[in-house]
Amino acid sequence: MPYREDRLWLQTDAPYELKCETDLALPPEGYRLSCINGVYSVASADEAGKLYGSYALREKILLGETDFSVTSAPAVSERILNHWDNITGVVERGYSGASLFFQNGNISYDPERIRFYARLLASVGINRICFNNVNVTGRSAKLITGELLPDLAALAEIFRPYHIKIIVAVDFNSPVMLGGLPTSDPLDEGVAVWWRAAADMVYAAIPDLAGFLVKADSEFRAGPAALGRTQADGANVIARALKPHGGKTYWRCFVYNCEQDWRDAQTDRPKAAYDHFQPLDGTFDGNVILQIKYGPSDFQVREPNSPLLGAMRNTAQAIELQITQEYTGQQIDLYALAAQWEEIFTSPVSDTRQTRDLVGREIIAVTAVANTGRDENWTGHTLAQANLYAFGRFAWNPAEKAKDVLNDWIGLTFGTEPQLREPLLNMLLTSRDVYEKYNAPLGVCWMVNIHHHYGPSPEGYEFMKWGTYHRASRTSIGVDRTEKGTGYTAQYHPYLDKLYSDPATCPEEMLLYFHRMPYDYILKSGKTILQHIYDTHFEGVEDVENYIATWISMKPLLPDSAYQSVLERLRRQLDNAKEWRDVINTYFYRLTEIPDEKGRMIYP
Amino acid sequence: MPYREDRLWLQTDAPYELKCETDLALPPEGYRLSCINGVYSVASADEAGKLYGSYALREKILLGETDFSVTSAPAVSERILNHWDNITGVVERGYSGASLFFQNGNISYDPERIRFYARLLASVGINRICFNNVNVTGRSAKLITGELLPDLAALAEIFRPYHIKIIVAVDFNSPVMLGGLPTSDPLDEGVAVWWRAAADMVYAAIPDLAGFLVKADSEFRAGPAALGRTQADGANVIARALKPHGGKTYWRCFVYNCEQDWRDAQTDRPKAAYDHFQPLDGTFDGNVILQIKYGPSDFQVREPNSPLLGAMRNTAQAIELQITQEYTGQQIDLYALAAQWEEIFTSPVSDTRQTRDLVGREIIAVTAVANTGRDENWTGHTLAQANLYAFGRFAWNPAEKAKDVLNDWIGLTFGTEPQLREPLLNMLLTSRDVYEKYNAPLGVCWMVNIHHHYGPSPEGYEFMKWGTYHRASRTSIGVDRTEKGTGYTAQYHPYLDKLYSDPATCPEEMLLYFHRMPYDYILKSGKTILQHIYDTHFEGVEDVENYIATWISMKPLLPDSAYQSVLERLRRQLDNAKEWRDVINTYFYRLTEIPDEKGRMIYP
Repeated sequence: MPYREDRLWLQTDAPYELKCETDLALPPEGYRLSCINGVYSVASADEAGKLYGSYALREKILLGETDFSVTSAPAVSERILNHWDNITGVVERGYSGASLFFQNGNISYDPERIRFYARLLASVGINRICFNNVNVTGRSAKLITGELLPDLAALAEIFRPYHIKIIVAVDFNSPVMLGGLPTSDPLDEGVAVWWRAAADMVYAAIPDLAGFLVKADSEFRAGPAALGRTQADGANVIARALKPHGGKTYWRCFVYNCEQDWRDAQTDRPKAAYDHFQPLDGTFDGNVILQIKYGPSDFQVREPNSPLLGAMRNTAQAIELQITQEYTGQQIDLYALAAQWEEIFTSPVSDTRQTRDLVGREIIAVTAVANTGRDENWTGHTLAQANLYAFGRFAWNPAEKAKDVLNDWIGLTFGTEPQLREPLLNMLLTSRDVYEKYNAPLGVCWMVNIHHHYGPSPEGYEFMKWGTYHRASRTSIGVDRTEKGTGYTAQYHPYLDKLYSDPATCPEEMLLYFHRMPYDYILKSGKTILQHIYDTHFEGVEDVENYIATWISMKPLLPDSAYQSVLERLRRQLDNAKEWRDVINTYFYRLTEIPDEKGRMIYP
Repeated sequence: MPYREDRLWLQTDAPYELKCETDLALPPEGYRLSCINGVYSVASADEAGKLYGSYALREKILLGETDFSVTSAPAVSERILNHWDNITGVVERGYSGASLFFQNGNISYDPERIRFYARLLASVGINRICFNNVNVTGRSAKLITGELLPDLAALAEIFRPYHIKIIVAVDFNSPVMLGGLPTSDPLDEGVAVWWRAAADMVYAAIPDLAGFLVKADSEFRAGPAALGRTQADGANVIARALKPHGGKTYWRCFVYNCEQDWRDAQTDRPKAAYDHFQPLDGTFDGNVILQIKYGPSDFQVREPNSPLLGAMRNTAQAIELQITQEYTGQQIDLYALAAQWEEIFTSPVSDTRQTRDLVGREIIAVTAVANTGRDENWTGHTLAQANLYAFGRFAWNPAEKAKDVLNDWIGLTFGTEPQLREPLLNMLLTSRDVYEKYNAPLGVCWMVNIHHHYGPSPEGYEFMKWGTYHRASRTSIGVDRTEKGTGYTAQYHPYLDKLYSDPATCPEEMLLYFHRMPYDYILKSGKTILQHIYDTHFEGVEDVENYIATWISMKPLLPDSAYQSVLERLRRQLDNAKEWRDVINTYFYRLTEIPDEKGRMIYP
């Protein structure tokens, strides 16, 4: 598949004169820009800072800005992209074609394209990449063996000039699977020896490797719990093997009972990460980073932030976002994640702190699941490029505003004409709300088709083993997660516990995440929950219709390939929005037999 | 995988003296048995009759019968087993291990096992077999090419001494896929020529081939409709190629819109087969057999017979049953199909005729999807062997009684001790009713998990494209298929139309197949529909518990391997029955919030 550079924010470099200087007073990777008498200048303490500064300068020039007096440094030293690429070439939750890195069980890529990709990532400050899926299956476990390591080292070589270091996802059970040991027990000395030898070999090939990423005890993957050991035991044995080389263990916290019985109303999946990890605070080695999904469920359209974020004062944490649109439209529906990320980072952790205040303190890394693949336009939906771009910006500076980031992306990608830029910015900024309107209502989550997660299925997950229940009846819906229910809210700071525990103060968009409510409960809008559901679902479809009209009106301002491909996606989105509208409305109509106040069509 | 002969109805032959004589007055394949002065004798007009007679005699000896004065002949000349085996070795809807015939894209088998299998099938009168799946994918299309034909001929060779002829499932689009033609249009002369050449080549290798089986215009498979031609056009072009060789086209009638919009309440999937085929009566060539699933849905636990059966006076028909337990417990749950088949064959077609009266007239073949694979015990669940056995018996004589057939099977397989035979017969005879009790109620169908079809999902198919809707609301459930609804009942003989159209006369077990009913409708039992649902679902679990107790009590009378393996299945069935009970009861409780009259546990 050929790829296009001409419709990305990072287009072929325009030449411009640039003066570089060293200023050791600047923080690592930081830069200071200036433009004096027409001479652009980048000051930095290190080579990485020079790189980021020159990209930042280039952006300003392309955007036609005039003020170049900027000093900037990243909030965290690790800004990580996680690919979920299988070594077969298939990308788990990938909606942009095959893997950029793997084919048929081997590392295989177009070096020119990968070089461009490295440059693209560096241009937004990403400095860590993991190529292989956290679900380490088949031959991908062997990436840390002599069989595949030379190829991995060659790939790392391409990223090195762009100051991007490699992470490898490894299988916790490697000592058994690869080493032939009888156990992977982290307290077994033979296992520790095996991990040290494995680390030594990997670092001999890739001396600047960032570390190993591990999904353990999670969704049928091996882990320490199955061996009667703690998550800290598991993470530490690997961290100790990496430590002499300066490497880290990235240890995912997505640990929950994925074989729950739906009849069990006490077990509550959102409680799992906190219950498993918070009590272990202080027992993880210094080079372990706990990688925590931003929300307690699983990258849903709407959920609260994870109570585990910031709940461990003595443990390094990474917040994990998802750029690939698993539950958010699969790069068919428009969904600019920047708006959601701004919410996540500005969500309160207590009465005095927001999540973004943790970044650079407890949270020392920002990571996300990639949305790129071999599609010509990299991201399936051309406008989904904005999500990769925005991730870089938010990882660098979690205090970013979605509006600024998206406005910059549009300017860099499509130009700065206001007739294009303003309507497109409006589309992107509202896209999350629109998707939410026609999706599951009020934070109820999981009303999606099982397995592939696109399209509505109101009871698709209702009786399954994944711990994902809304328990809708003819009168009410939702799970009481307060102290009167599952007790989940107690995992939050008392300020938030109180806020979320009272339906009157709970943010309404999360009402059904925290409470079981009757359909006739009156929202602040004066509408019942039921009428709110009907209204938002009709509105969502109308909004998508308006997107299409807007997009068509901008045709003269758009390159034809982008115009056509986005139009095709918007039309598919409209079908999807109608399907959601009708299924969700019908579902609630059948449960209540209360008609829409406005008499619109709800299928019986 | 080794296989066992010692626990099948057809065990190693015991030697006995036998006199064979020819009596040309007997019908083809028929036989007359006798025993005079201790000498057993089989008379027949042909070699096949001698074979079947000698097996029948052997059965009588093994069962300790004393009356040998029997004359018998099959109701139809074709008694067909359809394997859904993919050439990869994976069996579609197979629950007994890998394919007996294929491995990794090639024909590959244990010749001794296959010889035993041929003998096993012949012992119950099966005389046609198709090895490959009707969904002809990948290399299996090439079974009729020089590449795989020699291996197919060698396999046919093994079955020939047992009077079993081969059928091959072919892809309607073969002229394009294999022949490189620009079209598969059945009215294109080049296409006709191609089929003739293909038939000539196959018959050169397998001169007694029975014919080609085709699934066309069905679930995304190619077919004549997509080319603007009729089903008759499609079937006839292939039939004409086969005719000079005495071959037939077996043309499946499973044609329906599998991309239905659930919002469309007029399209009604059960109507599809009749609508597509009945108007074409008389336009099919004489060597075309229309293969019609017994019911209008898809091998559900409970559905009416297809109105297409017997609705074409001038077209040869085959009734298609399913031995593999796709929707009927997947060889985990006990389900003796004989009881269901007896119902199917005794179901009325009009006020004067039953389905079995059509057999030997319009219906000239009985066919079924196989349940066998490489598992040691052939059928996954040891007791599922009874289903293969019973199919042979019903195909030979559709007037069989389930009770007699199963009693014979038990006697042949486990011996004739009444302490074993009576309780086991009771288990088998009731097993269909028990499964139905904890399944979807009153003929509502399809409350199963999508794709794999095991376990409950009340709304799993509710908003999908397969045309499978019950449209349950807080007050009522089911689809009105009378003239006031979709008009489906009009496809039946007026006698049945009237019978099914009135809830008062409609067989209650199919009430929700034909009618939309309120939950408080009073059944003949005096119970509401809702209480009936609760009661049957609690009873179903209790019945399985009783099966387990019965089975355990019979331990001393059972061979240990069969005892253990069946016990393991029964325990899994109990888990499944509980899951069905609780999901279905909870589903209806949430819809109605009416508690169980007897106060039993229904999860909220």
